[in-house]
Amino acid sequence: MSEIKTLEKIARLIRYFILASTTKAGSGHPTSSLSATDLMTALLFGGIFRFNVTNPEHPNNDRLIFSKGHASPLLYALWAAAGQVSEQELMTLRKFGSPLEGHPAIEFPYTEAATGSLGQGLSIGLGMAMNAKYIDGLPYATYVLLGDSEMSEGSQWEALQLAAHYRLDNLIGIIDVNRLGQRGQTMYGHDLSAYEKRISSFGWETMTIDGHNFNEITAAFEKARMVNDRPAMVIAKTIKGKGVSFIEDRDGWHGKALNNEEFARALEELGDVDKSVRGVITVPEDIRPEPKAVQKAGELSYSADQRVATRKAYGNALVRIFPQFPDIVVLDAEVSNSTYAEIFKKSYPERFFEMFIAEQNMVTAALGLSRRGRIPFVSTFAAFFTRAFDQIRMSQYSSPNIKFVGSHAGVSIGEDGSSQMGLEDIAMFRTLLDSVVLYPSDAVSAEKLVEEAARHNGLVYIRTTRADTPIIYDKDEEFPIGGCKVLKQSASDLITVVTAGITIHEALRAYEKLKKENILIRVIDLYSVKPIEASTLKEAAHVTRAILTVEDHFGPGGLGEAVASALAGSPVPVHSLSVRRMPRSGTPEQLLQYEGISENHIIEKIKEIL
Amino acid sequence: MSEIKTLEKIARLIRYFILASTTKAGSGHPTSSLSATDLMTALLFGGIFRFNVTNPEHPNNDRLIFSKGHASPLLYALWAAAGQVSEQELMTLRKFGSPLEGHPAIEFPYTEAATGSLGQGLSIGLGMAMNAKYIDGLPYATYVLLGDSEMSEGSQWEALQLAAHYRLDNLIGIIDVNRLGQRGQTMYGHDLSAYEKRISSFGWETMTIDGHNFNEITAAFEKARMVNDRPAMVIAKTIKGKGVSFIEDRDGWHGKALNNEEFARALEELGDVDKSVRGVITVPEDIRPEPKAVQKAGELSYSADQRVATRKAYGNALVRIFPQFPDIVVLDAEVSNSTYAEIFKKSYPERFFEMFIAEQNMVTAALGLSRRGRIPFVSTFAAFFTRAFDQIRMSQYSSPNIKFVGSHAGVSIGEDGSSQMGLEDIAMFRTLLDSVVLYPSDAVSAEKLVEEAARHNGLVYIRTTRADTPIIYDKDEEFPIGGCKVLKQSASDLITVVTAGITIHEALRAYEKLKKENILIRVIDLYSVKPIEASTLKEAAHVTRAILTVEDHFGPGGLGEAVASALAGSPVPVHSLSVRRMPRSGTPEQLLQYEGISENHIIEKIKEIL
Repeated sequence: MSEIKTLEKIARLIRYFILASTTKAGSGHPTSSLSATDLMTALLFGGIFRFNVTNPEHPNNDRLIFSKGHASPLLYALWAAAGQVSEQELMTLRKFGSPLEGHPAIEFPYTEAATGSLGQGLSIGLGMAMNAKYIDGLPYATYVLLGDSEMSEGSQWEALQLAAHYRLDNLIGIIDVNRLGQRGQTMYGHDLSAYEKRISSFGWETMTIDGHNFNEITAAFEKARMVNDRPAMVIAKTIKGKGVSFIEDRDGWHGKALNNEEFARALEELGDVDKSVRGVITVPEDIRPEPKAVQKAGELSYSADQRVATRKAYGNALVRIFPQFPDIVVLDAEVSNSTYAEIFKKSYPERFFEMFIAEQNMVTAALGLSRRGRIPFVSTFAAFFTRAFDQIRMSQYSSPNIKFVGSHAGVSIGEDGSSQMGLEDIAMFRTLLDSVVLYPSDAVSAEKLVEEAARHNGLVYIRTTRADTPIIYDKDEEFPIGGCKVLKQSASDLITVVTAGITIHEALRAYEKLKKENILIRVIDLYSVKPIEASTLKEAAHVTRAILTVEDHFGPGGLGEAVASALAGSPVPVHSLSVRRMPRSGTPEQLLQYEGISENHIIEKIKEIL
Repeated sequence: MSEIKTLEKIARLIRYFILASTTKAGSGHPTSSLSATDLMTALLFGGIFRFNVTNPEHPNNDRLIFSKGHASPLLYALWAAAGQVSEQELMTLRKFGSPLEGHPAIEFPYTEAATGSLGQGLSIGLGMAMNAKYIDGLPYATYVLLGDSEMSEGSQWEALQLAAHYRLDNLIGIIDVNRLGQRGQTMYGHDLSAYEKRISSFGWETMTIDGHNFNEITAAFEKARMVNDRPAMVIAKTIKGKGVSFIEDRDGWHGKALNNEEFARALEELGDVDKSVRGVITVPEDIRPEPKAVQKAGELSYSADQRVATRKAYGNALVRIFPQFPDIVVLDAEVSNSTYAEIFKKSYPERFFEMFIAEQNMVTAALGLSRRGRIPFVSTFAAFFTRAFDQIRMSQYSSPNIKFVGSHAGVSIGEDGSSQMGLEDIAMFRTLLDSVVLYPSDAVSAEKLVEEAARHNGLVYIRTTRADTPIIYDKDEEFPIGGCKVLKQSASDLITVVTAGITIHEALRAYEKLKKENILIRVIDLYSVKPIEASTLKEAAHVTRAILTVEDHFGPGGLGEAVASALAGSPVPVHSLSVRRMPRSGTPEQLLQYEGISENHIIEKIKEIL
């Protein structure tokens, strides 16, 4: 039997799997799966894709990402056709407890990263392709299946431009141009040239094909794999619902399963399905990256009278700990001279990637790197991580090992004004599942927390400050995730101030002044905002008359609410000072004053409470 | 004196203003301002731009947006050269209390919308151009000054594609290609063709010019204004720091003011500055949009036994209230058949705009519409508003009148799985200044809250639910912003359950079951999560033994923390049930169970507390 005939046979089986599993589920996206069936069948079973099916984690496997995650029935059907998922398992699609979720989830071993929020797969692939070309030095290729509708997401164009910039000839995109979006025709319908001219203008090799012609598909993939020095995009004209006449190219059939009667009719159209046929995937060479030498991180060196910005300590820490964590990769969005990622860049230029002003792609590329075993540290202004909240949100579903470092937090940045001030970042990162939120107040704690972040396997956010701040900790102090530091304490404390970061210094000055008036307060550095150390807080709540939280951040979702939440039910009043007025330009001191979070506001508030 | 000579003279004055004001401020962006000086001088004072300087709010003024907001010294200098800002005022740049902030803020009357987070100005302009062409029917043009570095933001390409789609020939972009970003050369340096081919491939008319040649600049603007049926982009090669040799085209001069000695040297280079010269801006025709007829909104009509999804009630409400709020414009990101914005589209197609899957541009275009007096209702899945958090964040600084409506909130959406579930949206919207967060539980409250949102001048978020839910309110019930409803209450209530949205129905079922066991609970519908009605909560905290919050949302920053925060210091325990495990596919019921926020978990928890 010719290769084409085999592919046709496998494609028919896959179409059957798609229809059967979605009809059984009673929901899902058969039409969006059917349009890409021939493309993916040819890729996996036409000798192009290289993958060790029994070892999905093999470092030299090709990678396949379904950016159009709603075509998950196709993804599962492909691996069923490869013999890795039984028909019975396929019928658990979208059922509670099944790894075959509505959109690809990482419990399914062939999912590279969870998708479903559109326009993110290309960035995942970009991270994986960067890893192959620039870090692991492996010949694997990364393929990304894209929907035509999702090409309208700006994040796609961020990924396109950067993939060309980094000459990722190991990254291959496939656009399934099936013309129809969720509620009607896409912006460009079946006009392949609209995609071709845009994507080629971004520096990609492009090829347009009939996405249901196996000869054309296979030839395009072979050509794509041969392109040098640039990524390649296969732009395929396809028919949504292909293979079932009464749903083909029809509006109103997005995200809709066939009922049993329709399914029976569809089967008649499909013709004989050979359930015994299985596709064979080429096994890649067993090449693995060179093991990386590990050395212990160096020592800190700050003198007690220095003033050092925590953002600068971040850069210093990266250089210091890299020998111990050689999987670290640093990404920055064109502000490395502000975030101080540039300190790392100078020492380890081959592990630093300039991602330009395109935060969405930066974050998801970091996810791709993380999924390939790297430890990405991703930096920009705290404010600008909001640009990538959806990407950060999605990363939480892929067991991410990513460290986000946001500089220029709070109104204390001063003259640049509100647009540059991170005032929502604690709330944003706190709300995610299993996230860690760290907020150092001096260079020592910043360095230690960067180290803790590298050691912790998970999603970590570190909030740094623009201003130079005094050193308050000894270089041997430890800062475990989930801890806090009681900086001032006595048996006669009247009130407890809980704060972190820049306002620690305000609280410490307030302490000294109040002490002269014989008013003793407890001061707690809540450097780990999440997880929060509730017992120390409860103890303080028990022995002092009130808790006062102070933060250079908006109130809702911030440090104050974290504390209020940890103390819910304690009979102690919890007061909070936070940013409550529209911030503006001014000196850091003026702005801390204006927002009522400075030393004298702490003193005033304490006197008011007493 | 020839026109060119006059422009040169004004440009010299503007350069002086830029240098003097930034040197005086001791910070700011002189070099990024100088590169665009000739472009903006020619635009404003070369007879192109039409603006009634004494009436910045005139509806037929041309609009100018500085997307590269860091060039604010140029913006202020332009209006000084137009005679609207004194030199003395200019010297307050970046000082506390001055409207001349580090990045354009709306206290400055010629700022169309606050900018400073890059890659947003084109979308603001798009909203304003849509307003001119499709709503107000006015001939004004909208100009957007763009930086070259910020073209790497994906949001730019969202705006570019949509402006072409809507054939906005009244929108003109100007890219100041000065080659240098913050920390070095941009991706394309001075290669104008890189921008030209990309932007023309997106359907724009493009023209490349020398951005320091007044003849070329003026000719390009004149040509741009004549283009029909498509937007136009002027791509100008410029020199960062132009006019001061020792900072021209040099790395390391981004965002750095000259010191006094450097300033003196720069002045020598500038030569004679005529401080008396003023530029004249052409006055536009005094055309105003037709006044819109206002009629009272119709009546609700749901029968008590109906089950109606709140998302559907949203669509119904829009149609019902539009006659009363004829400034309403509805935008949706290709999911109008899920958010039910399509109900409005069917009735008022001319006020509905398909924004395709490009949430960032949608949000900022809405800001542009809002700044021109419209009331945009913007809908997508709750989860996908995270895609535009930076845009939403920035909108808070422009006195926005935007209504965000997020459907498919929570795990109760069911089979589609985690990627589609809005679980961070309450935290995200709550953290913003002066935001309103509403969460209706039935069709009546949903309709009423949509009406309240339209009436309220500000940023409002409405969270809707996928599932059909029973009607629990009478159609005459009122739902003021900042209120709540005590649904079940007695003198013997043991515990108070505070919840909203889908979980109201779980709480009501729990109430009935517990009642049979003679356990009476109070049930509060906290439909206004922000502002929060603290007094009813405090009263309940006072008379019942504990508060139990329940929400289909992650814990941090959510409804539970809002309640804990409002009750901080009350001696009553506050327990909370929220989404705490990684969600997955399943039926809505299974998922409410899995996350522990269903009827029986409420019952269990209450028994545990008692």
